[in-house]
Order: sequence, then C-alpha cells, then structure tokens
Amino acid sequence: MTDEPADNDIPGASRRTFLKGGAALGAGALAGAAARAESPDPLITEVQDWATSFGEAVDATPYGMPIHFESHVVRRNVEWLTESPVSSINFTPIHALEGTITPQGCAFERHHSGAIELSKADYRLMINGLVDRPLVFTFEDLMRFPRASLVAFCECAANGGMEWGGAQLEGCQFTQGMIHNMEYVGVPLRLLLAEAGVQPEGKWIYAEGADASSNGRSIPMEKAMDDVMVAFYANGEALRKEHGYPARLVVPGWEGNMWVKWLRRIGVYDQAVESREETSKYTDLMPDGRARKWTWVMDAKSVITSPSPQAPVRHGKGPLVITGLAWSGHGKVARVDVSLDGGRNWQEARITGEAKPKALTRFHLDIDWDGSELLLQSRAVDETGYVQPTKDALRAIRGLNNVYHNNGIQTWWLKPDGEVENVEVA
Amino acid sequence: MTDEPADNDIPGASRRTFLKGGAALGAGALAGAAARAESPDPLITEVQDWATSFGEAVDATPYGMPIHFESHVVRRNVEWLTESPVSSINFTPIHALEGTITPQGCAFERHHSGAIELSKADYRLMINGLVDRPLVFTFEDLMRFPRASLVAFCECAANGGMEWGGAQLEGCQFTQGMIHNMEYVGVPLRLLLAEAGVQPEGKWIYAEGADASSNGRSIPMEKAMDDVMVAFYANGEALRKEHGYPARLVVPGWEGNMWVKWLRRIGVYDQAVESREETSKYTDLMPDGRARKWTWVMDAKSVITSPSPQAPVRHGKGPLVITGLAWSGHGKVARVDVSLDGGRNWQEARITGEAKPKALTRFHLDIDWDGSELLLQSRAVDETGYVQPTKDALRAIRGLNNVYHNNGIQTWWLKPDGEVENVEVA
Repeated sequence: MTDEPADNDIPGASRRTFLKGGAALGAGALAGAAARAESPDPLITEVQDWATSFGEAVDATPYGMPIHFESHVVRRNVEWLTESPVSSINFTPIHALEGTITPQGCAFERHHSGAIELSKADYRLMINGLVDRPLVFTFEDLMRFPRASLVAFCECAANGGMEWGGAQLEGCQFTQGMIHNMEYVGVPLRLLLAEAGVQPEGKWIYAEGADASSNGRSIPMEKAMDDVMVAFYANGEALRKEHGYPARLVVPGWEGNMWVKWLRRIGVYDQAVESREETSKYTDLMPDGRARKWTWVMDAKSVITSPSPQAPVRHGKGPLVITGLAWSGHGKVARVDVSLDGGRNWQEARITGEAKPKALTRFHLDIDWDGSELLLQSRAVDETGYVQPTKDALRAIRGLNNVYHNNGIQTWWLKPDGEVENVEVA
Repeated sequence: MTDEPADNDIPGASRRTFLKGGAALGAGALAGAAARAESPDPLITEVQDWATSFGEAVDATPYGMPIHFESHVVRRNVEWLTESPVSSINFTPIHALEGTITPQGCAFERHHSGAIELSKADYRLMINGLVDRPLVFTFEDLMRFPRASLVAFCECAANGGMEWGGAQLEGCQFTQGMIHNMEYVGVPLRLLLAEAGVQPEGKWIYAEGADASSNGRSIPMEKAMDDVMVAFYANGEALRKEHGYPARLVVPGWEGNMWVKWLRRIGVYDQAVESREETSKYTDLMPDGRARKWTWVMDAKSVITSPSPQAPVRHGKGPLVITGLAWSGHGKVARVDVSLDGGRNWQEARITGEAKPKALTRFHLDIDWDGSELLLQSRAVDETGYVQPTKDALRAIRGLNNVYHNNGIQTWWLKPDGEVENVEVA
C-alpha cells in the first residue's frame, strides 16, 4: 500500500505507545463484543431493513450527490464579511474532508461580480499587445494544443485574514477554508504565447476575466512561461461554472486572485498594468501606511483540520487521530510538526500520501489522549527550509493594517469535554 | 510545471512536425484574427451580457453541480444488459473526462440489490472467525485508527466484456467505462486484523456487504495484510451512497467486485468460502467448459478516450489531440504505444502526470491529422514488462464463453468526416 503507516513509523506515538492505545481500544471493543455475546448488538446480529429490501437503482442518479447524512459538508459564507453575495467568498468545509483532493462541489469560490454562465460556443480568448500575431482562439482551437496536467492548491490571499486581529472566527472552515486543491488539465500558457510570438519587450502578461468585474492581474513573463496553465478540467471533469467554466488560469503557488476565471484576454506588455486588483486590493498595507505589492507567492502554511472547532472529539480519551493540511507556494512540504501544548514542544507528524510541489499535503499524528486540555498547533516546513511562523512574528513585521498573507500558526484549544475553540497563545 | 510537454518530448510528432501543425493552426487563427480586424468577432470585441450583469452569488450553491452545458457527461446504463436496474451497472463517461481523477458523481457503480442507505450511527463492522478476539467496531471506533491514503483504479471484471464477441457496443463509455479512479483515505485492513489477532490457521478473509445481496468475496491473507483498506473517504469527501457509504473495501489492482461496499463483516478462515460471487460469477468460463477461478488481478490495459465514438472530431484536419487511459493491477504503467493504422505501426505516447501503481494513468499523443481514415489503437506496457494483448490473442486461449477480464486492444475507426466507430481489425 502506498503511504500506509508502517508498524514503526507512527511518529509522536511510539509503536509501544500506539499499541497501548490500540490495545486499550481493543480491550474496549472486546469488552463490548463480550458484552454483546450476552446482550448482542442487533445492528450486527439481527437482519436489518437494508438487508431485506432493494436499494436505489443504477439509473436513479446519472450524476450523484453526497448522501443526505453529509448535508453539513458544504461551502458556507459569512454574510457580514462582504457587502454583497455577488462580490464575496465562501469557504471549503476543510474540517470535514480528508486526503488532499477537494471536490469541485464544495471547493471555495470567490468572485467579484457573480459566477457567470459562459458556453464553449461563446467563449473567446484573445492574446494581444506586444506579440507578432494577435490571436483570437475559440474553445475548440484551445482543445487542439498539447495538454499538461498538475495538482495545485488555490488559496485566497485573504485566507486566515481575520486572524490578524486575533482569534475572531470559530471553525476551521471559516478561519482557513479559502483553499482548495484539484487536478487540472489544460494547455501550458507558454504554448499559446509562443503561437502569438512574444516580442522581446514583452516582460509581463495581463490576464483578464470575462465577467463584469473584469478581474485582471499582471504576471511576470518568467512565471507565465514557467508553470501557468489555461485549464479546462478539474478533478477529471469540466470546470464548474463557479470555478471559471469553460477556462480559467492556473497559477501554481500564487495567490488565488491571479487564477483568473472565465479567462478572456492575455495582454502582453513591457510593464505591469497596476490594475485595481493589484493596487488598492491584494497589496499588503504595512504599519507605516505604505502598501507592499507583488506579494504573489503563498508562503508555507498548515492547519489542523480535525480536531477543530467544527470537528470536536466525541469519543473521549484514548486513541485520537489528529489530521491536517500543509502547503507551500514555493514547492514541496518537507515536514510538518505538531504541538500539543501551544508550541512549547513539537513532534513530527506523518505525511500521508505524496507531498507534491505547490499542492495540499495531508498529515496525521496518532496520539493516546489522556483527556486533559491540549493546545493544538501545526507548523509546516517547506523544501526551501522556510518554517511557518507564529502570528506574533508576522505581526511584528507587518502590523495589523493588512488582511492578506496570514500564514501564521493556528491554535485550537481542545478541552476535556472534547469541544474545540479557536484561541491564541502568547 | 509538473509533467507539461517539454519542447522536445512530444513523441510521435517531432518538434518540427508539431510546430508545423501548430503553425498551421496559428496561420489559421491568424487569418481569422486578420479577417476579424476588418470583420471583428463580436464575441470578443463587443461587450457581452455576461460582462454587464451580475452572475450567481456565492450562497447560491452550497454544494455545486456541473454546469448544464455538461449535462451529457453522466453515468449511463444499458437497459438490456441486465435484468433489473437494482442488480445492474452503469458506466463512467470516460470519453468526456480528462486527467486521472474520476469525480464520484459520475463514477460507474455496480450493485447487486441496489444502493442502500446506511448511516454512520447504524454502521457496524464485525471481525470474526479464526481470531483471538472477535470484534464489533462502530464507525467511530474505526475513525480512531491510523489512516492511510492511496489512489487506485476500480475496474469491474466485466469491463469490455461485450467485446469478447466483437465490436458490439458503440461508445467508449459503454465498451470500457466500468472503471473509476479515486483518492481513498481509510484504515489499512491489517491494523484491524491485528486488533482482532489472526490465528495461524487464518489464511483467508471473507469480506461481506450489508446490502440484501450480501455480496461476499474471499481474499488471501497475504493481500489482506498488504494494501487492502477499509475506506471512508473518496476524493476528499465521504463515500457517496452508491459507492458504499459509510465504508467500503479498497482492494488495489483487483477486480471491482471484491471492493465490497457497505462492508459489514470480515470473516477469517482457513480456506476460501467459495461463495456465489466467486464460483457461478466472477470466474472465467474456458472453451472446454471448465471455469478458471481466482483471476483477481486486472491485467494491463488501455483505451483511447478521445477521439472515440462519443467524442468525434469536429474540427477537421490539422492538429489533433489523441488521449486515453492506461492502467495495470500489477503496478505502474511503464509505457503506452499508439497506432494510427490498426496495429501495424506504433509510436510511444506521452504519459501526462505521474504513473502511480494500480491507478489510472493519462496519456496523450499530438498528431497532425491529414484527414484520412485512421484505425486508432493503444497498447499499455506495465512495469512487469507485460504487454496488453490483442483481442484475438485472448480469444485463442480463453474462447468466447467468458465475459470477464477482457483487456484486449480496442480499435476506433476515425473516418474522414470525423465520426468514430467501434471496429475490429484482423
């Protein structure tokens, strides 16, 4: 099995410690089973309704949805956070997900003038500016170019932004859920740029969306020629409407606002456009009142998704699975540490599955919880050696004027009753 | 960018050849753009409705569905293929998908008595038989064990089964669509077996589902202790109802029928149970009337998903993207070859993204189509050196009595008008 926990690689809890936990569970389950020998659990010993009747037929759900028991695992927004739901954001229910892939159906979405409906027949992509051959592509034209694939996280620059001022929002979904991770397929942008012929003075591109907001961002030519993609598919199928159908830009490792949806134009210029979305917005207002711009890359970050305020511990003490996500816009996650005591002591978590560059990475730590309160933290280290900082370390440099690029360490207070609260530690 | 086509690694069409195709497209697009300079395309030069009005708000779709333009990309069944839709199968629309992940919503499903609704609260898993401690786990018990993750294909043993008798079903979806590929998270079965304590005489497990069909399969202990998983999550979220919510068995590389859904019991025995599903069904009836059993592993296979009968070529000659899927139950796909002339000549396709063991692998071949008819074939080679055989080579050994384990080479006839038909070549 790929990446399964080997007998001796459960970090943080030695084999002996875990077996102790496991044995405790086993003894419990065994006691239960023994009890059931005299007082059997009818859910396993008796024939149930679902074993004596037909279930749903194969033609009942041409396209399936989650079972109703999971109806709480949905995107949610915070009404007071933005002025209008057509220029707003919602949040991925990361507290209830596992693994690394985010289903499109519950992946956060941000738009500035609503999610538009744009057919492939009506779709056009223009490349103009400092090019030898200005071009207009139909969707079918784009489908004739060689395709690439990659898995990448997309994180809003404002993810965790409310945390600059302290623990303000309850719920892992609301504090850190402006992120998703999908497998994309599309055309490398550099193939389209080569088709148009970028002139030597062309040092920047400007990517613009077809929606009313005309969300547009400048991207240096080096990045545009590196790993930027015009994507048509996410997680195997067409992009959903709210994710930019039929084509969006994928800008691996860089802030989500640059992943222009409903992409309609790539302009090639000798300088940045300095649009609204990269001047009055998506710049970092520093303590001295100046705005720091071109902070495109999302630095290494991690968050424990369970236990967390929306994912309390209901089973009491004993074996407890701690899990979370880590990522870095600079490459692969090299290591994730977890603290149970608010950052005083750290132990290395297990990376479960592959750590891909610029993609979400899943980590686990299996502990034997004694039932006392814990201050849970996680800390990502990426392959460049960068270590995720504390919120206070970030505040010391960036102050409190800013809502963007908060990759500070998040703390969850796990209480003896199993409830979890968003807190800060000094 | 991960796995993007480098300038010099577009196999089958040399850089020169591809640039020729690209240039042809460029010239075409350029001509179009030039034409538009005098007769502009209003879809890009004029302000459109979707750029002057609001789209859908972020709170409109807590859980999103595909846009209505993609409503043809759904599971489909073939009514005459089985006696009842509650004991039947449907097919993944692989002709319309890209990349490697299959969304749960359109991933094929097979069940023998309908998809049942089983809550986590009502869920129980029993381990009994030759164990030191017979155990009954609640769902919450299972969630306290260390978790692993893996990406794996699940293929019905009958996938391509109608092709034994020749090209009988039109459509890549119907001929080869009993397959999906997801990222699973769950508990390695061997951790649960260790908890129960397998006795030395325990050489087989028997996995049984909670639905009325009691679908049950015997699995050798070596496999059960290797990479078999009790999975709760697929592609990040809970298993869908039709995929076995809340827990199914994942048996990487082995036929789909063994991936027992709504898993309720693991029995440990000294021999195989020889249940209905592994004797009268899911055995290979040979030409001499004897049935070959224990053919669990899905051998290396591939299929071109586009162009294909449901994915014709609408754009005429010139640059054409050929793409498909390859897989092997024995490990990684090492190479995929594509033939344009029914198997006389072969060229190596590009593997796009990572070739993971026992998981779907995407391949592409970019050609400059001259508009003449092609007989498209693909041929997978796995890391063991096994080469996907022709249908005739399989028939020579296995005859025509059997519907299972057809991994023969599929042929699509691309006609000058762009239509594609399922055919056989001598």
